[in-house]
Formats: sequence, C-alpha cells, structure tokens
Amino acid sequence: MPVNLTAPDPASLAPVAGVELGWAEAGIRKANRKDVLVMRIAPGASVAGVFTKNRFCAAPVQVCRAHLNVGRGVRALVVNTGNANAGTGEAGLADAHRTCVETARLLGCDSTQVLPFSTGVIMEPLPVERLIAGLPQAIGRLAPDHWYQAAESIMTTDTVPKAASRRIDLGGHAVTITGIAKGAGMIRPNMATMLGFIATDAGIDPALLPRLTRLAAEQSFNRITVDGDTSTNDSFVVIATGRSSAQRIESINDPRLARLNEAVAAVARELAQAIVRDGEGATKFIEIAVEGAATEDEATRVAYSIAHSPLVKTAFFASDPNLGRILAAVGNAGIDDLDPGRVQLYLNDVWVAQDGGRHPAYREEDGRRVMQAAEIVVRVVLGRGEARATVWTCDLSHEYVSINADYRS
Amino acid sequence: MPVNLTAPDPASLAPVAGVELGWAEAGIRKANRKDVLVMRIAPGASVAGVFTKNRFCAAPVQVCRAHLNVGRGVRALVVNTGNANAGTGEAGLADAHRTCVETARLLGCDSTQVLPFSTGVIMEPLPVERLIAGLPQAIGRLAPDHWYQAAESIMTTDTVPKAASRRIDLGGHAVTITGIAKGAGMIRPNMATMLGFIATDAGIDPALLPRLTRLAAEQSFNRITVDGDTSTNDSFVVIATGRSSAQRIESINDPRLARLNEAVAAVARELAQAIVRDGEGATKFIEIAVEGAATEDEATRVAYSIAHSPLVKTAFFASDPNLGRILAAVGNAGIDDLDPGRVQLYLNDVWVAQDGGRHPAYREEDGRRVMQAAEIVVRVVLGRGEARATVWTCDLSHEYVSINADYRS
Repeated sequence: MPVNLTAPDPASLAPVAGVELGWAEAGIRKANRKDVLVMRIAPGASVAGVFTKNRFCAAPVQVCRAHLNVGRGVRALVVNTGNANAGTGEAGLADAHRTCVETARLLGCDSTQVLPFSTGVIMEPLPVERLIAGLPQAIGRLAPDHWYQAAESIMTTDTVPKAASRRIDLGGHAVTITGIAKGAGMIRPNMATMLGFIATDAGIDPALLPRLTRLAAEQSFNRITVDGDTSTNDSFVVIATGRSSAQRIESINDPRLARLNEAVAAVARELAQAIVRDGEGATKFIEIAVEGAATEDEATRVAYSIAHSPLVKTAFFASDPNLGRILAAVGNAGIDDLDPGRVQLYLNDVWVAQDGGRHPAYREEDGRRVMQAAEIVVRVVLGRGEARATVWTCDLSHEYVSINADYRS
Repeated sequence: MPVNLTAPDPASLAPVAGVELGWAEAGIRKANRKDVLVMRIAPGASVAGVFTKNRFCAAPVQVCRAHLNVGRGVRALVVNTGNANAGTGEAGLADAHRTCVETARLLGCDSTQVLPFSTGVIMEPLPVERLIAGLPQAIGRLAPDHWYQAAESIMTTDTVPKAASRRIDLGGHAVTITGIAKGAGMIRPNMATMLGFIATDAGIDPALLPRLTRLAAEQSFNRITVDGDTSTNDSFVVIATGRSSAQRIESINDPRLARLNEAVAAVARELAQAIVRDGEGATKFIEIAVEGAATEDEATRVAYSIAHSPLVKTAFFASDPNLGRILAAVGNAGIDDLDPGRVQLYLNDVWVAQDGGRHPAYREEDGRRVMQAAEIVVRVVLGRGEARATVWTCDLSHEYVSINADYRS
C-alpha cells in the first residue's frame, strides 16, 4: 500500500510537443504485461542524462553514455523491464547495441541516436529477440498522449504508475514539463533501480542541459532512499524539444534558465517522492531534515545515517517511539567532533530530545501519537552551523522482506 | 533459531583464577530475569577495553573510559541489561557514577576501580535504585564457576548465552582464557549493542594489554555485522589476572605475547561468530571473503558493502540465487577505478561470475543448491592486488523486522 499516493489522472499529463510514446507487451519476463517503451523524439531536441555511480553499471548505461558522447542528437529512447542487462559482460553490450540498431532501422535514424534502458533482474542474459520482436508493436502505438501508459510500461515492483506534469509561463510563453519514473526499492543517493524521464517543449542549448539535469537530480532523485542500495541501472534523462513558442535558452545568464530548472526539479521531486511513497513495503513517508550543520555534506550524511538505519526504520514501521535510535544514528554519522550535548530532536510538533537527552516535557504518549501518523517529519538540529539538508525515506516492514525475498519468483 | 549454535556446556567454561561472577534478578525492565552481573577481579590484574565510536556514546562508556584513564586498576565490572543509560544526559552520568560508588562500597575498593556497562533501551532513565538494590544479591553469589550464568545475565534479544573457553600452553605453563558476550542486532564494524568480556589468568604488563585488546577486536568483533547499525554502548574488555604459574609478559618482544594474543583473538572470534549466528532473525551464517584487493581497507569496504546490502541479505533469506545483487554491492563499495571485467565471484564451490559476467558453466540449479545451505562462503576476487579481508554476517528475515518492531513491547 503506497503512502498517500494514487495513480495520476491520465488527463492531467500534458503532452509535450515533439515527444511520442508507445509500448509493447513483449513477454520479456512475463506474458501480457507492458514491458517495452519507445519514446520518439523530434529532430533538434536537446537531451542530457545522469547515470548510476555503481561500478557494475549495466550495459545500457554504458551505451547511453557513449551515445550521448557521440553527440549526434537523440531521436529515441527504448526501455525494457524484466531484465536489467547488468552483469552480462560483452554479450550484454552487444544486446544493448543491437536494440539500438533495430530501433534506429525502424525509425529511420542512426543507432547512436537511440538511448537504451533496462531494469529488472541482474546477471541474466537479456532476451533481446523478444525485445526486438516487440518494437514494431510499440512503434505502431506512438502518440503524444500516451504518458500514462508509458509510466505503466516501465513499472517493476512499483504498485502505482508514476507521472507528473506542470505548465509554466516562460517569458510570456506557455511551456509544458511532463515526466515519468519507476523505482520502488534500492533507491538511494545517486539513485537506484530508478528510471526517470522528463520532457519539456522549452528549448535550451545542448551545452546548458547537463547542468540543469544534474541540479534537478540533486534536489530530487539524489535525496531519496528506500533501502540504501544503489542499482546498476539508474538513469535520469531530460529532453528539451524546443517545440514551444518560447525562444530557446542560449545563455547561462538567461533568467528563464533558473525558472525552467526549478520547474523541472519540481516535477523530478514529485516523481522522486512518489518513488518513496511506493517504496517496497512502505507504510510511512518520512522526511528527515537536518539543520545547524557545519556543511551541507555533513547535514546530508546525518540525514542518510538516520534514513538508512534498519533500527530506526523498523521503529517507524511499528509506530514505536523508540526515539533513542535516531540519536544513535546521528552518533553514527561519522562526525568526529560532534557534541551530543548540543543536539535537538523534533518529530513533527513534538520536541523529543534537548541538548542530547530526553526533553523534560517529552511524554511517551506524544511520541506515540506522532509515530502513528502516515507522514512524519524528523528534524535534527546539530548546533554546529547554518547548513542543512533534507532527504525522504520510508519505513522497513515485513512486506519489504517479502517483496525482495520473492522478487524472482 | 540461531544458525548452528547451541548453548555452551557449562562444564566447558573453565574458571579463571582471580575472577568471580555473580548475578541478580533486579527487575530493571522485567521481573524474574537475570539482569545484573558483577565480576569481581582480584588485585593486581591488568584490564583494557575498546569502546563504541558512536558519538552518542552511553554514560557508562564515558565512565569506563574515565576510570581506565585514572589507572588505579580495576576491581569490578557491573553490567545491567534492560536499559542502555544512553541519551540520558547528566542524570545518566550521575547514575553510572552512583552504580560505581555503591559497588565500590560493597566490595571495599575505590569507585574509580569499578567499570559500569549497560545495554537495552536508549533514552530512558536508568532505574538506578533497582540496580543498586540488586547488587548485594549479585555479590552474594560471587564464585569463579559462574561463567555460564554470567553469560545468561547479560542477554537481551539473544536467544542463546554466549561463552567460550580455551586452555593453552604458555612457555610450559597452562593458561586459561574464558569469555562471554552478548549482542544480536546492531552489530557492525566497531561493534554494536555488543558487550564482550574475556579474562585470562596469564599476566601481562598493563601497558601491553590495550594493543592486544585492539588486535583481538580487529580480528573478531570488528569483523561482524548484522544490520549495519552501531550502538551507543559497545564495549569489549580483556582482563589478565596474572594468577597462573606463567611468568608475566613484560615486553613486546616476548614471543609468548603473540601466542596469548592469538588465543584471546580465537575466543573473541568464537564469541563474535556466535553473535552473528544468533543475529536477530538469522537463518543463515554467511562468511564474506574478499581477495585480490589493492589494500586491506578496500577489501573490508567491499566485504561490508555486500554484508550490508538489504537486497543481498533478503536473497540469502529466500535461498534465491539472485546473485547479481552481490555484484551490484561490489560496484557500490566506492572503488572509483574498479574494473568490473576483472571480478570473480564464488559461492562455496560454485564459480558464479567470471570476469564480471555470469560464468559460462554456471547453472541456476548450482546456485540454488548452494543458497539452500545454512552456512555460505561468498568469495569475491577483485583482481587488483594481494590484500584480503573477511567479515561474517547473516541474512535479513521477517523475524528481524518483528524483533525490532516489537523490541520495547
């Protein structure tokens, strides 16, 4: 049961001029399931991506990086679920290349203009014949208003399709930003078994898009965690087709750049939080805000130390205000000169720990009340400086174990 | 159900001349349960300890460090379960001091010659009056042959008391080493909710004992992990009474020092592995051996990256050979210049991954067979150098979630 998350209204997902989407049931791993997505992109779009830092990165990630480096522009994205094509060696690379070649042949572009993405089981050969056999079906369905079905077709252990859309005014011109994402476990800094695709009809110089993409990721997908694992396949891609009436952004000094960046980041944040709300087995949505840190890096480390602690996560699952576990997690963040006597801890409106110990006015029943909420804000004040960081996570439940113990069954 | 671990035969636990043990049912948290242990140490013993690196270290840990620094020798250890006396501020420090003062009064020594230890719930006031009221009962039971009951009296979520004993020949003289430990979750590098006490009747200069203690911890308690959390209370103490007929070790060049160190480390390793075998909800005992690393630190990081991955741990629980998750964990260890194409992976006798991809001869049924065993050796060869490291861990089960969700109930 996702936490306060329902499927988006398909009508709320605005098409983005220059992007068409089509899907296939290719039987990659299971029959009668949308498991291949093709996104066709009109010529002239700018495309940028950020990818997993896992050293065992999947074959499609390697091919994406190489094709973006070629720089001939991107005309199509191909995504399959059911198999990650990771830990598959040279054969996996060949399969990813072949996917690009066949897609390019069907769409009439160059194979280096196709970006491949895979998500699913690791270290099993990609059933590339089935994938390729499904491409004509997906291409036959290409249409601009298929964002909802596109979100469905990239789901793995997700229980709800994830998509979001915004319209903003960019210098007097209406601009659309629409995106989809998948991911339900293995989510953490630098993303994980996470795929995110956001398109806008704004135009932007290709040289300016990588930074925008990185900044948007920093404020969204890189600030969430479910279980601390980072996958081999994480990818986040931003497409700017330039088909709106707004003039293309050509300079880093164009004030519209910050506005576009903020709007893309807002869509990315909504998608990222949806991933946590649909986290494997999640029953609670938890925001961890660390303040008063000496540096942002330090604040982030403390936030993740709390977010990754299985003891903290099981206490949230149990609605048990065993809140000393949060202090212990703060103590484990590796800040050598941390003074525990200056640490404050709040849960929602309840002041739990003052100067490193239990607040005199804190009562167990207040802790119990807060812990029962489906959404909880943990606020830690370190008393060391002005820097802060926020991450989003979920609890650790029986269901998480069931899902991951049975994933391949 | 612990993995291949049963309670030790009380008769196998050899008394250590100069150490007596007594317990009480003090009702710290629950009635009719051994929850206070006193160890009385004869005058002239050398005592050293290593303690948690958690910055929110508990009050008793702070007092232990201070009393060891005073250097008047140690005459008693007092351990309580049911309450960690951590996150308790100044009041907690006062309670720990008072425990020492009362014990010293009853035993006729100075309060700085008493080391206090606590384990249990964090951030609740220590019921110090009940602890103190239990001291006479514990002291009344002091006897050298109470090692088994001592092991019982420090258990929290442990299901089996943990104790081990060795006799060795030290330069023609028989020497005894006997120890106890507790801990079942929150175990990781630098130890966690872990208490370990090892005594020997060998004699050693007090200046030489801290290094021996550190080396023994490095090879045992610092090489295990259950869930990656590090507690506020971890402590490991070695006591050398010097009551055997063997001459006291006075020099770092004495060849008997290495022999004693190895024997203490062997007892510590047995206790540490017992903690993992009794890990919260454990159904598998897993050894992770990383070889071919550039440095030992690198090997250790890779081993812990595997040992801490919830995806790897749930796959072990399910006996599911979803072994790509192990490669993904290797890729997440933060080795920037790792070449995945040189990585080999073995499970027991099965060669799973060769040069970063699935071994051509690997068959799913082999993986399935190995994953069903209760004890599994994961061997990863990085192909970067000669360094190696081994850590021990367990799987992640439904039971782990249940235990930690219900811990305070």
